[in-house]
Amino acid sequence: METYDIRFPTSRELDGSDAMNPDPDYSAAYLVLRTDAGDGVEGHGFAFTIGRGNDVQVAALDALRSHVTGRPVAELCADPGSLSRDLNGDSQLRWLGPEKGVMHMATGAVVNAVWDLAAKRARKPLWRLLADAEPEWLVSQVDFRYIADALTPQEALDLLRRGREGREARAADLVRRGYPAYTTSPGWLGYSDARLTRLAEEAVAQGFTQIKLKVGADLEDDVRRCRAARAAIGPGVRLAVDANQRWNVDEAIAWTKALAAFDPYWIEEPTSPDDILGHAAIRSAVAPVKVATGEHAQNRVVFKQLLQAGAIDVLQLDAARVGGVNENLAILLLAAKFGVPVCPHAGGVGLCELVQHLAMFDYVALSGTTEDRVIEYVDHLHEHFVHPVHVTGGRYRAPSAPGFSSAMHPASIATYTYPDGTFWAADLISGGETA
Amino acid sequence: METYDIRFPTSRELDGSDAMNPDPDYSAAYLVLRTDAGDGVEGHGFAFTIGRGNDVQVAALDALRSHVTGRPVAELCADPGSLSRDLNGDSQLRWLGPEKGVMHMATGAVVNAVWDLAAKRARKPLWRLLADAEPEWLVSQVDFRYIADALTPQEALDLLRRGREGREARAADLVRRGYPAYTTSPGWLGYSDARLTRLAEEAVAQGFTQIKLKVGADLEDDVRRCRAARAAIGPGVRLAVDANQRWNVDEAIAWTKALAAFDPYWIEEPTSPDDILGHAAIRSAVAPVKVATGEHAQNRVVFKQLLQAGAIDVLQLDAARVGGVNENLAILLLAAKFGVPVCPHAGGVGLCELVQHLAMFDYVALSGTTEDRVIEYVDHLHEHFVHPVHVTGGRYRAPSAPGFSSAMHPASIATYTYPDGTFWAADLISGGETA
Repeated sequence: METYDIRFPTSRELDGSDAMNPDPDYSAAYLVLRTDAGDGVEGHGFAFTIGRGNDVQVAALDALRSHVTGRPVAELCADPGSLSRDLNGDSQLRWLGPEKGVMHMATGAVVNAVWDLAAKRARKPLWRLLADAEPEWLVSQVDFRYIADALTPQEALDLLRRGREGREARAADLVRRGYPAYTTSPGWLGYSDARLTRLAEEAVAQGFTQIKLKVGADLEDDVRRCRAARAAIGPGVRLAVDANQRWNVDEAIAWTKALAAFDPYWIEEPTSPDDILGHAAIRSAVAPVKVATGEHAQNRVVFKQLLQAGAIDVLQLDAARVGGVNENLAILLLAAKFGVPVCPHAGGVGLCELVQHLAMFDYVALSGTTEDRVIEYVDHLHEHFVHPVHVTGGRYRAPSAPGFSSAMHPASIATYTYPDGTFWAADLISGGETA
Repeated sequence: METYDIRFPTSRELDGSDAMNPDPDYSAAYLVLRTDAGDGVEGHGFAFTIGRGNDVQVAALDALRSHVTGRPVAELCADPGSLSRDLNGDSQLRWLGPEKGVMHMATGAVVNAVWDLAAKRARKPLWRLLADAEPEWLVSQVDFRYIADALTPQEALDLLRRGREGREARAADLVRRGYPAYTTSPGWLGYSDARLTRLAEEAVAQGFTQIKLKVGADLEDDVRRCRAARAAIGPGVRLAVDANQRWNVDEAIAWTKALAAFDPYWIEEPTSPDDILGHAAIRSAVAPVKVATGEHAQNRVVFKQLLQAGAIDVLQLDAARVGGVNENLAILLLAAKFGVPVCPHAGGVGLCELVQHLAMFDYVALSGTTEDRVIEYVDHLHEHFVHPVHVTGGRYRAPSAPGFSSAMHPASIATYTYPDGTFWAADLISGGETA
């Protein structure tokens, strides 16, 4: 297991700017699993961060190394849930969470790397590996601790069995037509109105049926930007708005109502991701505007409660925030049980590449529908991935390459490793003028 | 700012063993703030961990260094809330939480070190510094983001003003009589029944009116151990039980009811610390047994909801889990608003030393009472502190030394720094036979 601190200087263009994150440097705490199987197959995984602290995230990956190295690779790939349980169950590391923050994202990165390895060894893209798996085996991959009051193993099994009906037809449809996407690229807070308008018009022309705007810094600005966006996209395209946790409960309600004239489809992250009861209060106050959250929801226990409390209309799981594919299986099953659509969070570094597999599995073999479901799309940094996402006509095309699409080009790693990669080394010499 | 990875080999005696943590090595990610004031006064703070991952916790401390160093010391000590807001508001580091897990404990350690420095410079123990402070200034030290729906600044001010009435009489009472304690020392899961009985009898003889037993690994064992403990302490002493998050909601209810014959005073951490709704369900099912939690509650947003949902009877704040004194002020104010008694978590390394100051401030200048309030006491590792807690007759004696009682002896740091301190260096040579 090798680890890398990889950082991209995105702050210099205000890409990714929002009300909470004015200047992110999109980064990845990245790992590569190598085996002695002799086939050259590697597992790649990463946690996404936005700059400072990526070194702490790498330290957390390193703290998990002894759980991974030395395990027989065939056993590991046949049962990633075993590793997942070991990582979450390490009693000393558990104290640092449990199952939240830096240590849990590290668990997710390692677990996802194992799934990448398993899918490559099976010569299938991950979505297909999951969709082909037996329901009993998928249930065995889920940790029901702390969620069994909302979802029993038997209920999960029933959902997965029901999800298999019509599976091949949906897989064929997916390969033919892809999965719906929406785009956040027009709406970063740091962009001018002219740039916003131009990008919004381009998004509609490209086939997107939903765009998203960052809001929450200044109400007057938001009103103006929402008006410009609505004018650019017309009444038939969905306009989501995203406050990135900027507000208290009362502010969230008042601000969302102030934007209601522009028919926002959902308000995303209106307040703290930890505030289940707060989201429930906001949801009942701002309907029919939907409430969406999840990119910072730390684990399945929080998602369980968001669903139990009727706090969200849209569940935005993230491939690299929680404990990896195994925990996201639990979250997809909870969403299916409660009948709440999953619209995954993506963007960042490689989040689109990862999460498309989970949404596609959900369509083919669990929820069985793409209705009111869209995967976020942001057109940044895909060029660093060996198998980048392919979005055309407003839809993600189903990946065909074996694995989890998580591998970066070696040249990108060598260039953007911090602080010794060629980009950063040169940047330090030139005083930050490289980009 | 200097940082240290300090680990004590407690696992070799099964001290601290419970249903989730069979073999903790009590550890501290420790920091020292030095200034150029020329007075030799230092600020000490730490995050408590239980072994593996203490290096990750130290990396998190190091990631905060640039926020602290170079600040004018008088300004910093006059307004620790300013640093607290900067640390919580660092948008790139915030991505790693927000306000939870490794990064948030690091914030707490740094903030607490500043309070130690501030109290030493003011030549007061921290509890006294807080109790002497103006209500308006204390309110200025609280971050109301995400809690204003449950507690407004004006409500906080009113609570603090009311808390000042009779303050001097309570301070004198505190200095004379101390603050009630309970002891967990008899009840570690790894102890034999004979040791449990002997220690329980000793605790009562020492004046404790409450003891605590670890439960949750095996019901038959728990029934036997509770019976032995109840026999040892008699009917008039409170017996708390602590499951350390071992159960699902249904298990928690059934297990607690199975122990009801032994009149448990509270069931502590019955399930995931993230499960607000789960605690509420458990509480309504197991009454009159009280529900207690908090040592792993990640921040004020979770405590707010535990109170809003009526999920707990007893709030167990921890001095080193959340973002330091400032966030614990918010939590104490929330508890006072909702009328829920605070019985702080302690033990570990130095948690007793820290948290006594918060409970004593609460008594003297906020809640104004010690009724149904006890601070946990565990008689481990105090010898490593310059100003160890002083517990006699089942009560914490009010500290009189200036500061937050957070400083360890330099010799302890030199001995137990991992892996290069003299203990661990010798241990590595002898193959783990040192202890």
